[in-house]
Amino acid sequence: MPARKGTAARPRDPVPGLVDSLLKGDKRAAGKLISLIEDDEPEATEAVARIHPHTGRAHVVGFTGPPGVGKSSLINRLVRTLRGRERKVGVVAVDPTSPYTGGAVLGDRIRMADTGVDPGVFIRSMATRGHAGGLALATFDAVRVLDALGMDLVLVETVGAGQSEVEIATRAHSTVVVEMPMTGDAVQTMKAGILEIGDVYVVNKVDLGNADVLVANLKFQLEARDGWTPPIIRTAAIEGRGIDELADALMRHAAFLDETGLRKKREIARARLEILENAQRLLAREVEAGSASGRDFERMAEDVASRRLDPNAAARKLLPTSSRKSS
Amino acid sequence: MPARKGTAARPRDPVPGLVDSLLKGDKRAAGKLISLIEDDEPEATEAVARIHPHTGRAHVVGFTGPPGVGKSSLINRLVRTLRGRERKVGVVAVDPTSPYTGGAVLGDRIRMADTGVDPGVFIRSMATRGHAGGLALATFDAVRVLDALGMDLVLVETVGAGQSEVEIATRAHSTVVVEMPMTGDAVQTMKAGILEIGDVYVVNKVDLGNADVLVANLKFQLEARDGWTPPIIRTAAIEGRGIDELADALMRHAAFLDETGLRKKREIARARLEILENAQRLLAREVEAGSASGRDFERMAEDVASRRLDPNAAARKLLPTSSRKSS
Repeated sequence: MPARKGTAARPRDPVPGLVDSLLKGDKRAAGKLISLIEDDEPEATEAVARIHPHTGRAHVVGFTGPPGVGKSSLINRLVRTLRGRERKVGVVAVDPTSPYTGGAVLGDRIRMADTGVDPGVFIRSMATRGHAGGLALATFDAVRVLDALGMDLVLVETVGAGQSEVEIATRAHSTVVVEMPMTGDAVQTMKAGILEIGDVYVVNKVDLGNADVLVANLKFQLEARDGWTPPIIRTAAIEGRGIDELADALMRHAAFLDETGLRKKREIARARLEILENAQRLLAREVEAGSASGRDFERMAEDVASRRLDPNAAARKLLPTSSRKSS
Repeated sequence: MPARKGTAARPRDPVPGLVDSLLKGDKRAAGKLISLIEDDEPEATEAVARIHPHTGRAHVVGFTGPPGVGKSSLINRLVRTLRGRERKVGVVAVDPTSPYTGGAVLGDRIRMADTGVDPGVFIRSMATRGHAGGLALATFDAVRVLDALGMDLVLVETVGAGQSEVEIATRAHSTVVVEMPMTGDAVQTMKAGILEIGDVYVVNKVDLGNADVLVANLKFQLEARDGWTPPIIRTAAIEGRGIDELADALMRHAAFLDETGLRKKREIARARLEILENAQRLLAREVEAGSASGRDFERMAEDVASRRLDPNAAARKLLPTSSRKSS
């Protein structure tokens, strides 16, 4: 686990004031709060606790798909379209492939800058350097900030192409899987479980040709899940084609989640993960702080490392008595 | 969390017998035990508890690097070289990019098959379909099996190119970062924190030319960590060039870890992660089983989802009393 930054070095705005400003729609406060989360500062815990009751309004959309497929351009266009419909839009962009140096792709951020002056848009890229609670937790704590800021939609853009990307995208209310017409590789990606996670499929770069094959292939393979058949949207993001249809599809899916009660179900599933990730972070902090329970935990880790204790038995000791008995 | 398979359906060998056979060097038992781990069966917990005290002898080497860089060929050659030095070698190959369909790359496995008849080699690819304890935990539980089987080295091959790959590789005793001479992309990968995780760097496919630039670039940027300067090895895995040097470098790093006490340090760090992952799996199982603590946990998740409780406060309730007080 990485060392957190010292907290005494730079003075910061007190959290309660920041949260009050956030709830009034202050973007500067939102930026500062996301920085606390990004840097995994202890104040972030208080901030999230204060923000959490004021969330639940925003519809959160995760975007996943291989690098180069045009996710940033698509999101850029979608933001404009949603603004045209009077929706406030937040964007959180994450690069999970760079856990150490926080490799947020600056080029993409710059391309997005033309929406930066609009007060109804907030775009933030996350450089989470080995966050003790995990990348997905930090991402969704940032999503909470934008939710409380009053955004109607929050788009989460993942940049990598691995398991963590999928993990992040599937915690959203709606998951958009972006593909493009290609040979070889594109087919492989399809096979790797991508058919099971999307609520909306986008075939981007239809201007490249070959899109019909991919669309037909998707249509053939996609099945309804929980009563929802994922639509397949053809887009050419650079030219702005198909973006209206994508916005419509997302609105339909949001309504579907509300009508069926699935929104609640998805939020409970995410809550489970987040509780566990918070527990992990708490323990990491206690080890760092050398508290009594931190020392207990460190001693357990040493016992596991020297084979006096197995890791599952150690885990049982960590959980409260009821769990210990029943397992 | 994915549903686990029913346990009543197919009869299985009792775990104690399997572990006894494993400790006598029975490869068939090793295969069966890894299957239990892979399928996340309840018996796997008992198996790991029984195996754990008999581990700690094998030197574990993680391999990371972008797809197409030649990791499989490199490992294939390295296995032969290590066999020539009378070392027993296990290989665990994981594909973290395919969490849903378990996309182990069959082509690579087939290429490795020529070492399969040697009793001193055990190669296994893992298809971990949404393991409740996480991909890295399942991988290292499989590593434990090969350690207890008597392998002198266990090589862990990751196939993706994301954060989970890095997470898996860095739990090993030695991490090998594999690169190849390229333009554009290769430089980007270098920048994304890869300089901070390798104990040994391999520049593969030196026969392609341009290797000098990459080696010079690496040499310029790599710094000593904890008294170890990562060596840069040039290889052409297909032709078997540089593999002896790689084996030498790994042996030197193993000796360095022993001399400095760093081996113990790395094992404690991994134990910390594994305890937490086991706690996560325990809770997932209790939720599934509907036990008292499982129901408590589910209620907390519902409270978090309906914003009555924040996830960090919920996490504090999960941990034992001492942690609750001190945080």
